[in-house]
Amino acid sequence: MNHEGHVGAIEAGGTKMVCAVGASWQEIRDGEKFVVPTTSPEETMALVMDWFVERDAETPLAAIGVASFGPIDFATDSIAMSTPKDAWRGVSWRRHVSRRLRDAAIGLDTDTNAAGLAEWRWGAAQDRQVAAYVTVGTGIGGALIINGAPVHGLLHPEMGHMVVPRQRGDEFAGTCPAHGDCLEGLACGLAVTRRWGHSGPQFPPDHAAWELESDYLALALVNIITIASPEVIIMGGGIMAVEGLLDRVRTKVRDRMAGYVAKEELASRIGEYIVAPGLGSSSGVVGAYALGSRAALDERK
Amino acid sequence: MNHEGHVGAIEAGGTKMVCAVGASWQEIRDGEKFVVPTTSPEETMALVMDWFVERDAETPLAAIGVASFGPIDFATDSIAMSTPKDAWRGVSWRRHVSRRLRDAAIGLDTDTNAAGLAEWRWGAAQDRQVAAYVTVGTGIGGALIINGAPVHGLLHPEMGHMVVPRQRGDEFAGTCPAHGDCLEGLACGLAVTRRWGHSGPQFPPDHAAWELESDYLALALVNIITIASPEVIIMGGGIMAVEGLLDRVRTKVRDRMAGYVAKEELASRIGEYIVAPGLGSSSGVVGAYALGSRAALDERK
Repeated sequence: MNHEGHVGAIEAGGTKMVCAVGASWQEIRDGEKFVVPTTSPEETMALVMDWFVERDAETPLAAIGVASFGPIDFATDSIAMSTPKDAWRGVSWRRHVSRRLRDAAIGLDTDTNAAGLAEWRWGAAQDRQVAAYVTVGTGIGGALIINGAPVHGLLHPEMGHMVVPRQRGDEFAGTCPAHGDCLEGLACGLAVTRRWGHSGPQFPPDHAAWELESDYLALALVNIITIASPEVIIMGGGIMAVEGLLDRVRTKVRDRMAGYVAKEELASRIGEYIVAPGLGSSSGVVGAYALGSRAALDERK
Repeated sequence: MNHEGHVGAIEAGGTKMVCAVGASWQEIRDGEKFVVPTTSPEETMALVMDWFVERDAETPLAAIGVASFGPIDFATDSIAMSTPKDAWRGVSWRRHVSRRLRDAAIGLDTDTNAAGLAEWRWGAAQDRQVAAYVTVGTGIGGALIINGAPVHGLLHPEMGHMVVPRQRGDEFAGTCPAHGDCLEGLACGLAVTRRWGHSGPQFPPDHAAWELESDYLALALVNIITIASPEVIIMGGGIMAVEGLLDRVRTKVRDRMAGYVAKEELASRIGEYIVAPGLGSSSGVVGAYALGSRAALDERK
């Protein structure tokens, strides 16, 4: 066991919650996962917390780290009012955890910030001063990790809601309830499904869906590069598992930047600049562990 | 005189160089300015350095701070190969300064990063962990100041070259030599001039040019907000002096964000969130002083 003690990790997504306990990030990555579908807050929270209370009885948990879908209101550690998942509005992680595990510290951040943090500590963004993590799945999210900490600022980045130029001939209205055709509205997994009529990952890699998808994702990365100047961009999420998609995005980013920023990372070394997660699909739950272990350390200061 | 000593400041723009010396930022802001038109590097550098050598003879300069147009190659402290100003490619600030002022430390950053830094230290971004500075003039630039330091990352932000959706009916090709219709190509001062046939600031505030301009600038801020989550956005540069333009941008950012990030800064307090520079038009030269005074301090460590 390391000096942060035993830590619980919750990767709280819109469709499922992934729970784990461990005393190191490797134990979290490799160990048992308890998975609960995200239904009503009452039902889901009860199942999740029951499991952690049982684990705590075996080995006391110093902290629980929560990597949650958002937006998050850090003033109350709650899922914010504007979340698209209506029933979860205002649900407070702090309240739910502390009611059942009185002695555990709580670390909370967005799922995306947590995954980016995990990639910085143990994955593909190690030793970088400025790193971006982008996830493309049911929704689209992004994090900036600067000097080892996720950027919060006003609240936290909501990269899925940036705007990008529509590609010629694409008349799809977009799926974002708030913005219509923002990046997420045009290019998230849901948008792929709705635009093309059935669920994305069933398309072959040479389907036109992925040509268009790579156009939008490349434009999104151009915006991240020109605004935040990351030294590496990590692209995770279910959609990025499509064969060849990451390579298409790389080529289009390089072409669109057109040599304006004269760095080899945006030319011959683009393959090392835009990369898959070093932690594979474990970035989220390992990120939750990172939040929990930091909270445990802070508690003892 | 303060502990950093007497410092020279150069705001090096594409049309002119503004030079000043002083022992505090207020002296730089309020004191004499020596202004040289930006012509050939040889001619311009000779005039600039002659003036500083004379000032140095009166009171030795501990450092020279340079806030330069870019892109900048920090490996050689030069103006990078991809600058649109051909004759200045590869011109090294370090070489030019050290040849004439052997004992002066040199601080160098982009004009935009320097102005953002000045706004953080003494202007409208004081005490903010995450601040954005955007300048809209002949070109468009932007800086992120995080925990008091301009973000560099891969190189430095080049926010003018982000992409935004074209507004309906706008068929203008864009002026950016590298990207055509990136933000700068569609909305910089040069683009306003070319699209509408004559120089922007001559248009009345109710001219359609400013309606379109505010559309593009608002979309740019939406991208900065969603990607970097600044706690304040400062908008400087000649174009922002147009009456009512800042207010139009505020309204459109608020409307476009549509409450998704539930913060008063993006609703009722938008007027305190998107603001004019606290240092007025002095951000650049005061930023150059900030770079110089920091270099003087670093030198003595």
